[in-house]
Amino acid sequence: MQVSKKLVNSVSGCADDALAGLVACNPAIQLLQGHRVALRSDLENIRGRVALLSGGGSGHEPAHAGYIGKGMLTGVVAGAVFTSPAVGSILAAIRAVMQAGSAGTLLIVKNYTGDRLNFGLALEQARAEGADVQMVVVGDDSAFTTQKKAGRRGLCGTVLIHKVAGALSEAGASLEEIVRRVTAAAGAMGTLGVSLSPCSVPGSGPTFQLAQDELELGLGIHGEAGVRRMKMVPADEIVKTMLDHMSSPSNTSCVALEPGASVVLVVNNLGGLSFLELGVVAGAAVRCLEDRGVRVARALVGAFMTALEMAGVSLTLLLVDDELLGLIDAKTTAVAWPNLARVPVTGQSRVLAAPEEGPTVEEPVPAGAPASQRVRLVLEQVCSTLLGLQEELNELDRAAGDGDCGSTHARAARGSLRLPKPSLSWGEVGWWEPTLEPSLFASHPRCRVSPAIQQWLNSTPLPAQPSQLLSTLSRLLLEKMGGSSGALYGLFLTAAAQPLQSRSDPAAWAAAMEAGIEAMQRYGGAAPGDRTMLDSLCAAAEELRALQAPGADLLPVLAKAVQSAEAAAESTKNMEAGAGRASYISSARLELPDPGAVAAAAVLRAVLEGLQSQSG
Amino acid sequence: MQVSKKLVNSVSGCADDALAGLVACNPAIQLLQGHRVALRSDLENIRGRVALLSGGGSGHEPAHAGYIGKGMLTGVVAGAVFTSPAVGSILAAIRAVMQAGSAGTLLIVKNYTGDRLNFGLALEQARAEGADVQMVVVGDDSAFTTQKKAGRRGLCGTVLIHKVAGALSEAGASLEEIVRRVTAAAGAMGTLGVSLSPCSVPGSGPTFQLAQDELELGLGIHGEAGVRRMKMVPADEIVKTMLDHMSSPSNTSCVALEPGASVVLVVNNLGGLSFLELGVVAGAAVRCLEDRGVRVARALVGAFMTALEMAGVSLTLLLVDDELLGLIDAKTTAVAWPNLARVPVTGQSRVLAAPEEGPTVEEPVPAGAPASQRVRLVLEQVCSTLLGLQEELNELDRAAGDGDCGSTHARAARGSLRLPKPSLSWGEVGWWEPTLEPSLFASHPRCRVSPAIQQWLNSTPLPAQPSQLLSTLSRLLLEKMGGSSGALYGLFLTAAAQPLQSRSDPAAWAAAMEAGIEAMQRYGGAAPGDRTMLDSLCAAAEELRALQAPGADLLPVLAKAVQSAEAAAESTKNMEAGAGRASYISSARLELPDPGAVAAAAVLRAVLEGLQSQSG
Repeated sequence: MQVSKKLVNSVSGCADDALAGLVACNPAIQLLQGHRVALRSDLENIRGRVALLSGGGSGHEPAHAGYIGKGMLTGVVAGAVFTSPAVGSILAAIRAVMQAGSAGTLLIVKNYTGDRLNFGLALEQARAEGADVQMVVVGDDSAFTTQKKAGRRGLCGTVLIHKVAGALSEAGASLEEIVRRVTAAAGAMGTLGVSLSPCSVPGSGPTFQLAQDELELGLGIHGEAGVRRMKMVPADEIVKTMLDHMSSPSNTSCVALEPGASVVLVVNNLGGLSFLELGVVAGAAVRCLEDRGVRVARALVGAFMTALEMAGVSLTLLLVDDELLGLIDAKTTAVAWPNLARVPVTGQSRVLAAPEEGPTVEEPVPAGAPASQRVRLVLEQVCSTLLGLQEELNELDRAAGDGDCGSTHARAARGSLRLPKPSLSWGEVGWWEPTLEPSLFASHPRCRVSPAIQQWLNSTPLPAQPSQLLSTLSRLLLEKMGGSSGALYGLFLTAAAQPLQSRSDPAAWAAAMEAGIEAMQRYGGAAPGDRTMLDSLCAAAEELRALQAPGADLLPVLAKAVQSAEAAAESTKNMEAGAGRASYISSARLELPDPGAVAAAAVLRAVLEGLQSQSG
Repeated sequence: MQVSKKLVNSVSGCADDALAGLVACNPAIQLLQGHRVALRSDLENIRGRVALLSGGGSGHEPAHAGYIGKGMLTGVVAGAVFTSPAVGSILAAIRAVMQAGSAGTLLIVKNYTGDRLNFGLALEQARAEGADVQMVVVGDDSAFTTQKKAGRRGLCGTVLIHKVAGALSEAGASLEEIVRRVTAAAGAMGTLGVSLSPCSVPGSGPTFQLAQDELELGLGIHGEAGVRRMKMVPADEIVKTMLDHMSSPSNTSCVALEPGASVVLVVNNLGGLSFLELGVVAGAAVRCLEDRGVRVARALVGAFMTALEMAGVSLTLLLVDDELLGLIDAKTTAVAWPNLARVPVTGQSRVLAAPEEGPTVEEPVPAGAPASQRVRLVLEQVCSTLLGLQEELNELDRAAGDGDCGSTHARAARGSLRLPKPSLSWGEVGWWEPTLEPSLFASHPRCRVSPAIQQWLNSTPLPAQPSQLLSTLSRLLLEKMGGSSGALYGLFLTAAAQPLQSRSDPAAWAAAMEAGIEAMQRYGGAAPGDRTMLDSLCAAAEELRALQAPGADLLPVLAKAVQSAEAAAESTKNMEAGAGRASYISSARLELPDPGAVAAAAVLRAVLEGLQSQSG
């Protein structure tokens, strides 16, 4: 079996290095000379309080060193990866906290034979030296439905025990009281894990194999076997299976999840699961618990007790009353304890009403009015031009991009239509958008048509105000055209609308062109010469400045601008791509003009022709 | 290419589900109806302060929703996985904070074309509605050594910008001041990533392939290409390469890392790296920075800005002065911001002197004294018995365990020897312990001998006090024998030593046996009948109780106890394994006796024979 790749210095030194690294980054903790032990730097503050020591094998980071701090652990003892710590080191930690004047020491140990033996031995040796030491063995595993001789394994719930014990110690509770209350809390807790992958101890290969469509339920935190394998199903179903298993009264290690119960929920990344998936699981868990009438008092989501890089998640449930919750809420300086809001999760409103829309005081001109008619004709000309250019633009785009420039522009004109496509995974139905000739598919019974400019022209009165017209067109393109092109046109139109708010003379239109170009450059990051639509637009804008002269005549100036834009579009074939998708593929000169520049020039020509057809 | 396994409900819904999950678990944030937007639940507290909005594609969790809270972001807008958020949603978020009475809004945007365009468009639209909005584009990538038209990509450093802006807003700074100071901070920052694996967008396969011995340097947070591939080397070397690259003056995107500079360091898990490795890298980074005379002011270690499940890590460096550091240190309620100590990392002592040893007032008896001689003879008998049984015990153990029971016991007697073995990985030299006949290897020039009881008997005066003798033997076995057997014998001896502290008559020895057995059961979890050495020991203890009668004669009682132990050992062949390694292999009856029980009975016989040889 192949040894897994690891970012370490050496297999034998990785546990030392990992602990030393956490200590190096956390000035509140220190290493104990000669031992794989980390302790609070401010040990003087443990005087007269009960010291809390925990630990175990390495590979569970941030456990356990991340939980050292005021209000949590006094120190931890780490073994090699997945190996119990050395008795001598545990004893050294006990001596250190004893010599700092602690009022007794509690060892919090996860239930594994090796940990029980080694912590137990250190405890016996420390007692022989006169130390007041107790040990609590945490077993929160809810995987095994029948009682195991070895008892329940210690899993992520141990972190909650660290918190509860830490809050009690900080509040000055005695060793006996802490043992009593922590033992009660540990008995009201359950944890269950699920994983999509194994993990690998440094220097070794994966601990087990899982098929591409399988997951393992109820596994431990060392890659040891779980209770069963399942086929992959949606996350909601996995979470329900987990919670059913954990709370089933037929499971001897169950958590008594009665309706009305309050729980602290921990959604723990076992190491290699994406935090996106962790969020999905967290949401499913809260929903599933609330559906059963359980109140989620607090929910912790993150990586708390990992199993190296295992791609899995565990759920921990701790039944709480107000008193126990107060201990969970108590302040701590431990770096890996999350910044939890001290507010119940269940019962809060999770959705805020959408804000009011912005002021859109549109005063549409009646459909037959001259201005409206003029705009309609121009836009129809633009649409038919873009539809006619679809294949040519796609062809140009194939040389440098993803070949959809024509389709994108056609979609702006005509809208899109979508057809259902077969399942991607787990029965989900996706949508497929035909890019060739949509009319061929329009008769499909489940075809969804999403109309764009053409349909809009025929269905609503057009805004009379030029700035409103451009704003409306901006929103339409953004929604229907999509992608970077939609955003760029949208930006252009939104910015161009501003100079047209108070006037709409030719000079204002020239200013609109400038404003649009400026916004496109600012947010798009391209400049003229970068082989984009800006090349056409800037060439046109240059000519349109003539409109700012008093008495300038629109159509001749526009005609000159269109010619200039077309020439600029053609000249992009000699340019290197400086922005946009084409910039990523090669720095070699491309032999065809940029499709975006060609499209922009064509739109300008269509506007000119639309206006000419009315003035002629 | 195979679609990667993901714990989601559907590919198309996973971004919504992930955000809703984080909101469900965090009562301090709410969703905005109809949008993939999360906002502070206490929006009323933003009145009169500058609102801070950020966001981008999903797949970077806990970014960005984890950074919402007092002292950090007011809200975030999320896109689909690795896709810019919708303009309409960004606009809705701006309107919501505007309507809550904020004194202007700052958009904090990572430098990607899509994000720039969509946030820019929403900004333009919001301005058209009269909103006071500004935008800061963060580009902290230090991967590309020559200037790119698209500018530096926005990476994990963006989280520090959220923090700085949040602290300023909370302190009542104006929009202009926040823009100015945040822009300055963003210019004093660099981030560089390295990865051992690609990531997979839900519904797709991995974004790229990496060989088993390769890693990729300088990649983005969407699996896009880095600047180069490297062969795997130790973590220290990787970190040095990263810091050299980030700080090289020939790199146009470098961080000016002069000696004496103060930095905030972020060691960011890109998603799927084990937190063990993260700790190793964190330690290497602090060491490497301090070696250059750089002062690490604060170090954040965790998953802050991920790229789904990518097994990689990024390092971010932010040059800070006291003022900027104060903003990093300012309080926040954001759940994903770590619980940082407000103390410099550099300059703290990281090692605490080891504690004093426990009281070990041993008063050895001169080597020739009768008591010492008696003990020596008994222990020599025990050692030679165990060495003679080595193969028989290994053979018994092969049927049910890992076949090393005899070797383990022999090691207790004679100690171990180790030979160098070839490299496991990256030049590390491991050690190999010959299990068969160590004397064959003892002449090897690099053989290391670790002596145990036999050597100890010949080299030191023996402790006179029986309890001290047992304590010393306990430490010796623990160290030299190792494993669970060493711990169990160690526990037995440590506990057995207690009743012998004040007296050493035959009754005290019987009590010692009871105490040892009790400790073994308490920590080991086995009981008589579980097919372990307890079966022999308990049978013997039963007979030894006769020693508690006044005037009991030691040797006849011990002889009876040994017989009983041997019979019990033999009878384990009819038992099911209830504990120990054998309990995992099968519940079928094993046909041979338990090697641990046989060994324990043999030790008792050796003690008897050793005593008999002296009394005879």
